[in-house]
This record gives sequence, structure tokens and C-alpha cells, in this order.
Amino acid sequence: MDSKDISQAVIGRLPRYHRFLSELRDQGIERISSADLSTLMHVTASQIRQDLNNFGGFGQQGYGYNVDYLYNEIGKILGLDREYDSIIIGAGNLGRALGGYLNFERRGFIFRGIFDKNPELFGKDVRGVKISPISELDAFLKENTIDIAVLTIPKTGALEVIDTLVDNGIKAIWNFAHFDLDVREGVQVENLHLSGSLMKLSYNISKSLK
Amino acid sequence: MDSKDISQAVIGRLPRYHRFLSELRDQGIERISSADLSTLMHVTASQIRQDLNNFGGFGQQGYGYNVDYLYNEIGKILGLDREYDSIIIGAGNLGRALGGYLNFERRGFIFRGIFDKNPELFGKDVRGVKISPISELDAFLKENTIDIAVLTIPKTGALEVIDTLVDNGIKAIWNFAHFDLDVREGVQVENLHLSGSLMKLSYNISKSLK
Repeated sequence: MDSKDISQAVIGRLPRYHRFLSELRDQGIERISSADLSTLMHVTASQIRQDLNNFGGFGQQGYGYNVDYLYNEIGKILGLDREYDSIIIGAGNLGRALGGYLNFERRGFIFRGIFDKNPELFGKDVRGVKISPISELDAFLKENTIDIAVLTIPKTGALEVIDTLVDNGIKAIWNFAHFDLDVREGVQVENLHLSGSLMKLSYNISKSLK
Repeated sequence: MDSKDISQAVIGRLPRYHRFLSELRDQGIERISSADLSTLMHVTASQIRQDLNNFGGFGQQGYGYNVDYLYNEIGKILGLDREYDSIIIGAGNLGRALGGYLNFERRGFIFRGIFDKNPELFGKDVRGVKISPISELDAFLKENTIDIAVLTIPKTGALEVIDTLVDNGIKAIWNFAHFDLDVREGVQVENLHLSGSLMKLSYNISKSLK
């Protein structure tokens, strides 16, 4: 089915379904009723049925959902049925953590390169990938087709590499720098602000103390 | 004003205002019109006025918003006017990255301890804090009042420490493990799933290719 027909609200909930279904698969569970899935996920059975009806009629009365099939269908909608060549800009702790993350084999994100400006890091290894000088980024991108660039450097450094990335046809940027990256149309951007998540916690703690 | 009067939707948008206002402050900008803030943030001026009206009438016709005042007021609502003693469970790259993050002095998150089960890491230093054996967690929590525990270990390990954390009165858990943590009432939980963010990117890339 065409994912364009699915609302953004449903799309936003899909990674969570994908996460729970992945776990059920790992446990060897082949099918699950919408009632059991509802209990597990703390979502109403009606919400689940509405969400999953977007993928056609594989939730059958008296049978429930086929875990493996649903997992794969949701994966396809989320674009996980293809591979994404990815690089990381910034070989600090966060960059190195995400290098391991990109390498996680069940996902289709292929960790192809990692760049930094600190000469002490050049040639060191992150999960089998050598850290290269940021000065080699442009040449690297001209020789390799890269889909995703992950930015784990401060804003100043990030602003310096954006043009190189975009001019060389990068398709998406996963930005961890503390600013809202805004690039030209056609480049997908996901800003992940750890501080926003931490502020939700501090808001909730401080509210609970009042 | 009482933050309980502010809708969750507004609260969810506050960290972004806080981020932009922080930047304006850094640039020495003292006041900004709602029109300029609207251009900067790609949000309608009417949305900004509605959101910020929740904080009372300091957006004045012909003057605009007082950057410093607004920054501080939003910070207060977000609970950033107090300090949160925090520990990290898991001294891998992500844990170490967040150690630096918690230490960031402008925020009120105080990095008090980091724990791991790997003996090779014991005694090593993360931003001035020694890595301790996870076996010492319970004793540490009995001697120190800790507000926030950050989980940067896999699900299995996370499940093993939850009771120790909760029984010792931890107020909030910032969970990076790949599962939806669900603990007893009164403990605030923020699950940050990097994979969910990455899947939004893969969804958008794969959609743009269709």
C-alpha cells in the first residue's frame, strides 16, 4: 500500500509498534490479539485496530495479528527495507556511540565513515571505521554516495560542513547539535535535541514537587 | 504563574523557545518582536503570541519580547531554576557522552556518579567523576539523594537496576535502552529512543524517493 495515505500521526506512532513487535519476535511469539497488544503497549485496543487497519486486513477476528508480517510491513512503511549509507561528523563520545548504533545489523543503516577535526583522532578506529580528517569530507563525498550524515559536533562546526554535505547530494541530516538545522528543500532533517527531552523530565519532576 | 494552567501542547513547545531565546541571549539581543521571532522559528506570529501569552503580558505592542526575561520565565516553568542530582548507569560511549552533557554548567543537572559492571572501567574518570561498580549502586543511593538516573545500558541490565533505583527514591529516569520503561506511579520516566528518530528519517527519505 501507498504510505502517502497514512496520516502523520499514525506514522509518528509506528516506531513504537515496531519496537514492541521486534520484542515479541525475539521472544518467538508468532501472533498476538489486539487485546494483549493493548495491555502490553498501554494503548486502547480500538486505537491499535485503527492504526493497524492502515496496513490492510491482517488482523483477523479470533486470530489476532501475525507478529512477523506486521513487523515487516511496518518496517517497509518506515523505509527499513532498504539500506542507507551513513557518515558521522564528530568522533567524540556521542559520535562514537552512534557509530555503534548505525552498525546495529538489524537496521539498514550502514556506517561508512566518521570525520573529525582533531588530528589526535585521525586513523583511530570506531567499529572498524577509521576516523578521517574533516578536510577530506568533500573528496570522500565525491567518491561515495552517502544518504545520511549524522552531526555530533557543536553548531559552529555544523554550520561549516552543511554546504559540503548538501552540495554533494546528501539526502538526510540527523542533527544532534544544539540548534534547529534548516537546510534547502529536498534534504530531510531530523533535529534530535537531548536537552528537549531532559527538560521534559525537569518539568515533570518540578511539577510533581509542587 | 502556576504551570498547571499551561497545556501539554504548549509545554512540549517550550524547550524550542528556550533554545532560540538562549541563542538570542548569547548574541546579546535584548528584545525581539513577535514578527522577527516568527521568521526565525518558522512559526506563525499568532502561534507565538498565543503560546507566550501563557506567561503573562510581557510582549508589549511596539516593544516586543524581553529576551532575558522570557528565557528565565520559560526556564522556571521547565523546572530549570533548581538543581537535579543525577547519575548515569552505563559508562559506554553514550553514558560518557551524556556525562559531559549533564555537566553542562548552564543547566541545573549535576553529574554525581556513573556506574558500570565492567571491572576494566572501575576508577576511570568521566568529567571528574569516577566510574563505580554497579554493585555499589544501592549503597551509593542510600548515602546520597539522587533525583535523576540516566540508563544507557541494554534492556536486561536496565531491568536489573530499576528496583534499586525506585526503592531508593529516585524521582526520574531518563531511559535510552531500547524498550518502553514503565515503573510505579510517582517516578517520572522519559524514554528517548534514538531508533524512533532514525526511523522518522528513513521514512522521510524513502518517501522522497517514491
